[in-house]
Amino acid sequence: MEKISQTLKPPYYAVIFTSIKSDHLENYDEEALRMENLVKSQPGYLGHESASAEIGITVSYWKDLESIKAWKKQKDHRLAQVKGKSTWYSQYKIRICKVEKEYGV
Amino acid sequence: MEKISQTLKPPYYAVIFTSIKSDHLENYDEEALRMENLVKSQPGYLGHESASAEIGITVSYWKDLESIKAWKKQKDHRLAQVKGKSTWYSQYKIRICKVEKEYGV
Repeated sequence: MEKISQTLKPPYYAVIFTSIKSDHLENYDEEALRMENLVKSQPGYLGHESASAEIGITVSYWKDLESIKAWKKQKDHRLAQVKGKSTWYSQYKIRICKVEKEYGV
Repeated sequence: MEKISQTLKPPYYAVIFTSIKSDHLENYDEEALRMENLVKSQPGYLGHESASAEIGITVSYWKDLESIKAWKKQKDHRLAQVKGKSTWYSQYKIRICKVEKEYGV
């Protein structure tokens, strides 16, 4: 089961990625899985949470903005971004956020 | 279809609510729908996005921290929070974030 991420004490950073898929999903599942594995080995990565229904939401957590920038520029990830933009997603939005407070059980 | 929220130019705020449901879901669907309708009429509310699979993720967007605090204290919402904590969720986390940047198509 995909668990709720246990992150650091704030402040840290979150990337909220929301998307609506197109009808052109060649290689999507393989690439999504590949990116999911790859992201876990990136410096500054703290965890991620993902769910999809009519829209997909993936939130990844990061130590700082530099780590987010480095992941954005990572070679294989760049190729996936190009494919996402041109083919897999009909709409998407990425929001870069500073997590200021967290609570829960 | 639940669409991707069209929000303001950053900065604005996001509340990331991730949860894992328990097996005790009496009244959950009705209350979730009621809260979803109620939140839309709150001052400072900008939109929200929701998806659920093994975990549920709801991200709501707000003009400022004051609006988030007011919604947290709203009477009916407080009752739903109590019920969520005691009954509906086996685990949850709420993260209050400042959205610093956004992009997408």
